Amino acid sequence: MKPAEVPAPPVLPSPLPSRTGGRGNPRGSLYLVPNTLDFGTDGELPPIDDVLPASVIRTAARLTHWIAENAKTTRAFLKRVDAVMPLAQALQALVIVELPRPRKGTRDAPAADLGALLAPALQGHDIGLISEAGLPAVADPGAALVQAAHAAGIAVTALAGPSSLLLALAASGLNGQSFAFVGYLPVEAAERGARIRELEALSLRIGQTQLMIETPYRNAALLGALLTHLQPGTRLSVSCGLTLPGGYTRTDTVQAWKARPATLPADVPAVFSLLA
Amino acid sequence: MKPAEVPAPPVLPSPLPSRTGGRGNPRGSLYLVPNTLDFGTDGELPPIDDVLPASVIRTAARLTHWIAENAKTTRAFLKRVDAVMPLAQALQALVIVELPRPRKGTRDAPAADLGALLAPALQGHDIGLISEAGLPAVADPGAALVQAAHAAGIAVTALAGPSSLLLALAASGLNGQSFAFVGYLPVEAAERGARIRELEALSLRIGQTQLMIETPYRNAALLGALLTHLQPGTRLSVSCGLTLPGGYTRTDTVQAWKARPATLPADVPAVFSLLA
Repeated sequence: MKPAEVPAPPVLPSPLPSRTGGRGNPRGSLYLVPNTLDFGTDGELPPIDDVLPASVIRTAARLTHWIAENAKTTRAFLKRVDAVMPLAQALQALVIVELPRPRKGTRDAPAADLGALLAPALQGHDIGLISEAGLPAVADPGAALVQAAHAAGIAVTALAGPSSLLLALAASGLNGQSFAFVGYLPVEAAERGARIRELEALSLRIGQTQLMIETPYRNAALLGALLTHLQPGTRLSVSCGLTLPGGYTRTDTVQAWKARPATLPADVPAVFSLLA
Repeated sequence: MKPAEVPAPPVLPSPLPSRTGGRGNPRGSLYLVPNTLDFGTDGELPPIDDVLPASVIRTAARLTHWIAENAKTTRAFLKRVDAVMPLAQALQALVIVELPRPRKGTRDAPAADLGALLAPALQGHDIGLISEAGLPAVADPGAALVQAAHAAGIAVTALAGPSSLLLALAASGLNGQSFAFVGYLPVEAAERGARIRELEALSLRIGQTQLMIETPYRNAALLGALLTHLQPGTRLSVSCGLTLPGGYTRTDTVQAWKARPATLPADVPAVFSLLA
């Protein structure tokens, strides 16, 4: 692996505000750093360059300022980075702050709090945003922070890494030209059933694959509800433990799922996709 | 980088049909192999381990059977793999077949053709599916082949790599908890305008980010149409040349885009996202 490098300068005509204007320092950027998908997995983890590209590891190794969904798991991530590419500064010297949790009843943290988190970028420091698994700000906290960065004229760069949603969609064989991720379904049985029928009707009407996720211990309950409420000919795909040893994707009609039932693991993330 | 390895055996209870039953060979798997996003880019390309994880390169280097959107660009991809990890067989000895184009007026190739392409897997060979950029079967051909693999009891594994859609969504700061990819908009002006207003109304009603793509030479025309038809307060994000030097994401209200117009490159892929 090559030593840490500053990314190449832009060559496209950028519509972003000048980042080096005036007499101030150049502004730092906000990097969205992908995490692995093995969060909470038992057993030995693979070397991190096995699951993330070298350019991502190089960027992670040089960043000195982090905003994290969870500081403890971020330190574990950085130890894995350090094992394959030495960190530019010792782990203890890094600034790692946690993303504030949204106030009750709201989706995002207050804008003022987010602005304060981004202050180091205005002083010229690049900042990494990282969540516990996969890409930050996708099916994960962080979008409000990214929005605040745009509002402050801070360039945002998302780095390529694993996304369980896209891997599940690709492996499903369902429509990849039109798809929607709808998050979690309601937990209450009647509401859940109504939502499943609504998503199926939408999928049938516009030919759009509908993807959803569930807390792992409710995987089996969601599968049961889907098989109860979907039409026999609707195609249902379940991806379990993607990128983990033994991870798999099964796609079948609802009828075939019922004829050959499956037991889903209660401790591994799953993605459910349907196409009517 | 470690020598080529056979992936670890499954540890999850798999609901797939047994792949080693009877007296036949074990079946091969279908691997969805991500390509880089620098297709068609001028200038020197980075080493491929810079943009893809080592486990993907290891799998690509050992596969002897390929199904490709384009055989020529697949050979170029495999040369880049060979430069960092020697291929298990010489490039000329690999079997690379092209995905048949859909018959006119249909989205997918005939099922019989797809079944024939998968025959090597039934004889025990692992097969790689690859497109010209990004993940196969997502906003790209291949979903029908994946579906045929599921129907034939062939295990499907999607390997992690860059996806311009998810990178654009993450970098947009728009809602990543609910989003839809709707592909291309109609080209005809009145239809395009109607579709834009329909997507904005849907986004407003259910709070869902809507993502779309365009042929690069029409990037500027699509931006113009979006600014004409969207409401001033709707947020619009444009990502250009993601993972390329100088790639960027700009997110602003429609009003702010109009106040500070942008020239989009006509030769670089872009992803457009809106949230009303």
